[in-house]
Parts: sequence; structure tokens; C-alpha cells
Amino acid sequence: MSDNKKQVVIAIDLGGTAVKMGILDTSYEILAQTSIPTNAQRPYEEIIADIGKTAATLLTENGYALSDCRGVGVGSPGIIDSKNGVVLYSNNIRWDHVPFSETLQQYLPVPVYIQNDANCMTLGEVLKGAAKGYQNAIFLTLGTGVGGGIVIDGKIFEGGHSGGAELGHIKGGSQRRRCTCGRYDCLEAYASATALIEDAKKLAEQHPESLLWELCGHDLETMNAKIPFDAADAGDSCGKTLVEHYIGYLADGITDLANIFRPDIIVLGGGVCAQGEKLTKPLNEFLQENCFGSEVTYIPKVVIAQNGNNAGMIGAAGLVLGAGE
Amino acid sequence: MSDNKKQVVIAIDLGGTAVKMGILDTSYEILAQTSIPTNAQRPYEEIIADIGKTAATLLTENGYALSDCRGVGVGSPGIIDSKNGVVLYSNNIRWDHVPFSETLQQYLPVPVYIQNDANCMTLGEVLKGAAKGYQNAIFLTLGTGVGGGIVIDGKIFEGGHSGGAELGHIKGGSQRRRCTCGRYDCLEAYASATALIEDAKKLAEQHPESLLWELCGHDLETMNAKIPFDAADAGDSCGKTLVEHYIGYLADGITDLANIFRPDIIVLGGGVCAQGEKLTKPLNEFLQENCFGSEVTYIPKVVIAQNGNNAGMIGAAGLVLGAGE
Repeated sequence: MSDNKKQVVIAIDLGGTAVKMGILDTSYEILAQTSIPTNAQRPYEEIIADIGKTAATLLTENGYALSDCRGVGVGSPGIIDSKNGVVLYSNNIRWDHVPFSETLQQYLPVPVYIQNDANCMTLGEVLKGAAKGYQNAIFLTLGTGVGGGIVIDGKIFEGGHSGGAELGHIKGGSQRRRCTCGRYDCLEAYASATALIEDAKKLAEQHPESLLWELCGHDLETMNAKIPFDAADAGDSCGKTLVEHYIGYLADGITDLANIFRPDIIVLGGGVCAQGEKLTKPLNEFLQENCFGSEVTYIPKVVIAQNGNNAGMIGAAGLVLGAGE
Repeated sequence: MSDNKKQVVIAIDLGGTAVKMGILDTSYEILAQTSIPTNAQRPYEEIIADIGKTAATLLTENGYALSDCRGVGVGSPGIIDSKNGVVLYSNNIRWDHVPFSETLQQYLPVPVYIQNDANCMTLGEVLKGAAKGYQNAIFLTLGTGVGGGIVIDGKIFEGGHSGGAELGHIKGGSQRRRCTCGRYDCLEAYASATALIEDAKKLAEQHPESLLWELCGHDLETMNAKIPFDAADAGDSCGKTLVEHYIGYLADGITDLANIFRPDIIVLGGGVCAQGEKLTKPLNEFLQENCFGSEVTYIPKVVIAQNGNNAGMIGAAGLVLGAGE
């Protein structure tokens, strides 16, 4: 092993479209990074071989030996058996019981740690981000779906049987919306960017006089999660309704999680969180009023994530550096 | 100290109406018990003095010395600062920042451990009850309100800042029902015995032709949480509607908790759980269908609590016997 100061980790952020890989130092600084297309239709052996070889090359090209590498951390979508390093199920990459760690170690013979990607992002925000310095954090990512992560006493809490922390799959609304998971009315069906866009499309179609309709260029296909907020800012009543309802769903979900976990901090990530204070201000106000026992106990703060596109890699690195602590 | 086999603990179950006290051995067998009226309007010093003296007498009368007593465990309603032994807030006994442990130790100079009563009941079911042998359990008590408790890796999880595990205060329905906590639409406002009784009263009043109305003797004041189930069993459509809705609310809450914690087991306590399989059968079926990733991960079992009226004392004893483990 080389000089201790030179120790690094490899972080892998596995996605349905691309796999991001980075070399990070022990302060979670990204020293080098690259990415490859996932080509998810390939056999898993091929995908993992591709990842392993690319990461090994990245390491070498940047002047590190395998002996400098403390391990590989992996954030993966889906249900992960972190103990055995197996991706039990991923809707995103269509994997079923894939022995990820074992397979990757054929190419990178170092310790491999794997976790659900939202869990990784949560840990990343705690280690270096919006929740730095806090021991107890909840993370919600508002994107295609609603992902969630829980950190208790500085460690990822994945629930029993590798099956918890599915924070997008708690009750969200009551309009009998079918969630991607099969259940009706999950938070994801109301508070994801996808849900907001669907709601906006419907309302724009019903209101051709609205700014909402104008801002999407009279073409529903161009609707995105920003337009409702822009329309609301300009005073459009459709935009206001959408934003009010959206924040209402989110506020309820966040209050549920506050009453269950009473974390120090609740971090919002994903595309919609670009709205910043337009989300956090009303959400913090709602929590102040509606948290159980708000007069006598701590009210968690709601903040926006800071790690952006590197969130997954930073958290994945944390799996390695925090292991065995 | 006397013979080690003779070691006992004092368990106290503090309620708004009565305080139950017991002497338990290290196998959680209740060797002796008594109770006193709380008389909650008294100054807390008086109530705690009364508890301390009564418990000390119970100990002596049953042939135990203070040196035989490993400690006192206390289950209290409200928000408890377990670390400092303070009842921060109890709506039930109208306490505000009461230094319980310190005050009790004036009468019982042994270690005192205090926790929220629902947390105690949860631990009790894990130590000796429906969840015995499991390390991860969720407990819901369906009574005047909906209380909750969480055991993770065999230990009570109270959330951060002594303010979590308020499982009755997650989103329950969408009829804008004001919950006792101030928020709208908490599970407690739909799945407590109180809520079921209120719903039954309304429906009975609207349907004088119903068996529901007959079973309460044409007097809404005699309505209880059993009548809707009895009416449903006899084929009454009002009863069936009530039971179906009630189980629907509960099923949603339980599924939320399964998706968040994925515990080994979910235990139902409180008055409504006298319905036994009429609750657990449909709830287990709902979980099988609606838990996130139900094809690939473990589905928690829903069972009925076993400790009945002794639940609080057994759990309180567990606070002492499990301390420092």
C-alpha cells in the first residue's frame, strides 16, 4: 500500500441510462470521473464487466494502484440486499437477483459496498452537503418518482429485510391514482415531478385561457415541472392551484415523516427542488404549525440538497469510508 | 444485595385515571401488583410521592428489599425526554416539563427509566408477547387515540429529539377531520376507536332502518367500537360500510409503516383489536397486495397484541432489564 494520504475510493452511480464513476479522496472530493452508457438491455454480466474495467482504467490513468483503493461504493436503483451485495429487484434496469458485488470483484478485487441510490444520496448530504453536521436526516428526491432515504445516528437506515425507506410509497392523496408500485395513492403519484407535470397537462388542457397553457407553447408535450411555478409567480390561477396542491401533498408527506422520525433535518433533492425557497418556505411554515407537539419538541428544518449530480457518488463513497466505523 | 435469583424490578404504568404498579421478575412475570387513582389534578410532586410510597410498600410487603430491586421502569403518556427522565408534555395528565425520574428517586433511590407508554407496550410485546423472538416490530394501539411504537434491533426507537414514533399522526384520510393534535386528517382521526364510534353514530342516525341503530338500542350514547363489527357480521349494510372503511384506513397506515420500516411484525393493540382475525385477515391480505416490492421482499405479518392490560408494565420492566445491554 502506498502513502496513507493517497488513499482513495471508487464511487459508482448506477442509473438506467448512464453509469457515473468517480475517484474520491477521503474528504469526499471528486478527483476524477467518467461515465458510460448503461445499455440496460445487455446481460448484467456484460454491464458489470464494462463498469469494472472502466473504473479500473480510471484508477490507473489517474496514477492510483489498486492498493490505494479502499473499496468501491455503489448506489443502485431498486431493492438492494446490501449485506450480500445483491440487486434484488430494479424496475429501472430490469434486474432480478443480480449478484453485483461478487461480479464486480472479478474486475476490482477490493471490498464492494452497495446500497439503494436514494439511500446513498441521503448519506452524501449528511457527509458533505445540506445535512452536514447532522446525525439524523430524511431525504426526499422529487424526480421521475419520489425516492427516499433515512439516516439515523449517522448511518443509513434501510429498514428490515432490505425493504424499508420507501418514502415515496406512503399515502399521498385520495384521488385513486395508481402508483407505479401497484398501490393506489402513494405520495409518488402526487409529489413526483412526473405527477406535477401530468396534473399541469390536464389543467392546461382544460384552461386554454391560462398562462399555464401559454407557457408550454400550446403544446402539452413541452410541459415541465418548472412551468406551473413560473405561471403561479406571474399570478396565473391555474399555476397557483397546481403549486398549492403540490406543496400540500409534499407538506403532508414531510409532516408524516417528521412525526415518525423527528429528524434534525429534511433534505429535498431531484428536479423540482430547483424551486428552492418556493418549496422550503411554505413547507417549513406547515411543519411549524402541524408537527405533533410542535410547542414542546424540535421541528425539523426543510432544506434543499446541495450535492446535485454528484450526490449519488458522494454517498457511494461514504458507504466505503463509513464501513466498519 | 440478596440472592441474585431474587432480583426484581418495579414497573409503573402511568395513566390519566389510574397508576398501575407491579413487581416483576427478570422473566417478566408479574409477582405482585396494585394500583392507585391518579387524581391528575393534584400537583405532580404529590402524585409522584404517592406512586413512590405505594411502590416502596408493595416491594416491602412482598418480601423484597430495595437492594433486590434493579430499578424502576415507567411508561407515561405524552412526550418523554427519556434521557433526562422528564415528562415534557402530557395532554392526558396535563403535565409540562415534570422531572419524573428525579422526583421519584426521592422515594425509590434506584435507577429510574421512563418512556412513552406506547413505546413501552411495543417493547413488552417484543420481550413477552405477540412479537416475541422478533427484533423489528411496529405497534399500533387502537383506542381513544392511535398510539404507536417502534422497536428496531430489539430496542425502542423513539425518533430524534424524543419526538418521533407518533404513528397515529401520519396521514389517514381526506375528509378534513381535525385531529386532537391540531393537524387535519391524521390516522388517529380515522382509525381510533373514538373515530369509529363517531362514524358509527353518524351512520346510525342517518339509517334508523339499520341493525346498527338497533344494536345501540336506539341510543347513540351507547354506541361502541364493537357494534359496527357485530352489525357487519349480521349482514347490515351500514355495519359493513363502517368496517370496510375502518379497515381501509388502517390498511393504508400499516402499509405506509411497512414501506418505511419493513418490520418483521406489526402488532395491533387497544380496544378495537378484540376483533382479532376480522382485522388481521383483511389487513394481511392488503399488505400482501400493496406492500412495495411485495414479490421480492418480506411482507410483515399483522398480529394481535397478547399482553392486554399488563402490556405497559411488562414493557416498563423491559426498560430496566434491557438498560445497558
